[in-house]
Amino acid sequence: MKRSDRLVTMTNYLVEHPMELISLPFFSDTYGAAKSSISEDLSIINHMFKEDGIGYLESISGAAGGVKYVPNVSINKSESMIDKLCKELEDPNRILPGGYLFMSDILGTPITIREIGRLFASRFAGLNIDSIVTVATKGIPLAYAVASYLNVPVVIVRRDPKVTEGSTVSINYVSGSSKKIQTMVLSKRSLKPGENVCIIDDFMKAGGTINGMRNLLQEFDANVKAIGVLAEAEDEEEDRVVDDYTSLLQIKNVDSNSKQIEVIKGNYFE
Amino acid sequence: MKRSDRLVTMTNYLVEHPMELISLPFFSDTYGAAKSSISEDLSIINHMFKEDGIGYLESISGAAGGVKYVPNVSINKSESMIDKLCKELEDPNRILPGGYLFMSDILGTPITIREIGRLFASRFAGLNIDSIVTVATKGIPLAYAVASYLNVPVVIVRRDPKVTEGSTVSINYVSGSSKKIQTMVLSKRSLKPGENVCIIDDFMKAGGTINGMRNLLQEFDANVKAIGVLAEAEDEEEDRVVDDYTSLLQIKNVDSNSKQIEVIKGNYFE
Repeated sequence: MKRSDRLVTMTNYLVEHPMELISLPFFSDTYGAAKSSISEDLSIINHMFKEDGIGYLESISGAAGGVKYVPNVSINKSESMIDKLCKELEDPNRILPGGYLFMSDILGTPITIREIGRLFASRFAGLNIDSIVTVATKGIPLAYAVASYLNVPVVIVRRDPKVTEGSTVSINYVSGSSKKIQTMVLSKRSLKPGENVCIIDDFMKAGGTINGMRNLLQEFDANVKAIGVLAEAEDEEEDRVVDDYTSLLQIKNVDSNSKQIEVIKGNYFE
Repeated sequence: MKRSDRLVTMTNYLVEHPMELISLPFFSDTYGAAKSSISEDLSIINHMFKEDGIGYLESISGAAGGVKYVPNVSINKSESMIDKLCKELEDPNRILPGGYLFMSDILGTPITIREIGRLFASRFAGLNIDSIVTVATKGIPLAYAVASYLNVPVVIVRRDPKVTEGSTVSINYVSGSSKKIQTMVLSKRSLKPGENVCIIDDFMKAGGTINGMRNLLQEFDANVKAIGVLAEAEDEEEDRVVDDYTSLLQIKNVDSNSKQIEVIKGNYFE
């Protein structure tokens, strides 16, 4: 196979298998090329991934070595993306009763969700995450986007048990904003003991839901290594019960009367 | 920029922008290369996409022309993928009370979900789909996978209205299996009148839920152009109310007593 052909197919293979260690012999066998040629291909690809600001190839030397595509986003690219998102969210038509914001259209656009997922994945890539955990419903797309860049499974906590989950573990928790007692369930088969997990959700106010997930995950002996939320908002009535999180956006001063709203960058950029 | 560099970055650009018409001047301006060189690059990429069985580049000639990456899956690749999935699902440990099957682990693996999504996207790529519609919760990841290959938004029908959806349209429908009256809601902002939509779900028995979605979508003057379900199962008590669907898997003869189950290829392969 010619170099030009190999570069196309290897680029594809690498972006479809992020965070997976691929040995040089695998490439040289698959494409019938000398290891030295493969190494040159990989250095071209690595250079271009960095140029495009989408990540880099990590080389692991030795007998069990190879290369791994680590997704990343350049600071410039991530800031301009989030600035654009802030502007979009400041549209007064998004203000809903109770100071909530309509975000379903943004969460419904796969290309946006994947860009956001790449941001979290690049921040959490070094934490040896085994699974992404989210709670139904709105956090699911984002959780899958992060998971696809980290190449790990997604586990979905539900509010109601369903027969298709098999046996479940459930906990009751107090919602931070509404102070109501709520239930969360997770299928017993979903996590092995001792897994490193990352919690992803679309929105956090006081953090009651995320705290509930943390309690539920204790029942599975999981280690919560990271918490990522797309947007955080202030809760006037309740102190925040979660503080070790990464947010991309902060929603401030939603005023449904004067139709004013301010959205700024989250602590991801601090 | 050298050809080898261009091939890497153009491959990436194309796979991240499926179904989007990209003009040749865009590429030649971005990479500072003559149109003739860009054309040669594109023909190398097209050849390798076909070799890899991941799709092809469609050329549209004329002043408003360009190229479009159309995702596709070769018959061999799709059959071997589904055969593997059938085997995995025939594991007797998956049988749950009521003849249901535990599938959350498979639905939780991004790489599998994306492969399945590519199958549906390649089948529905010619239908000018504007949006993918699914119902919470289990169908969501699959809907996003299909949507990301068709480069269109996802719209999520819910069982319960939430404040974050804004004003909603709701309907009542009769579930095919349980014969209970259930409710479905969809945010009024989610679809424009006259959109071409594709319904995606993970599982279909009698089809009551999908039929409910179809009724709800009528309220939005949407045209349901396609219905895709990952797995269909027989319902002994109820005749199917939906017949124009595409399924990847058929679950047959689930016997919870003898722990036997048969999973075969769906009508996608007929």
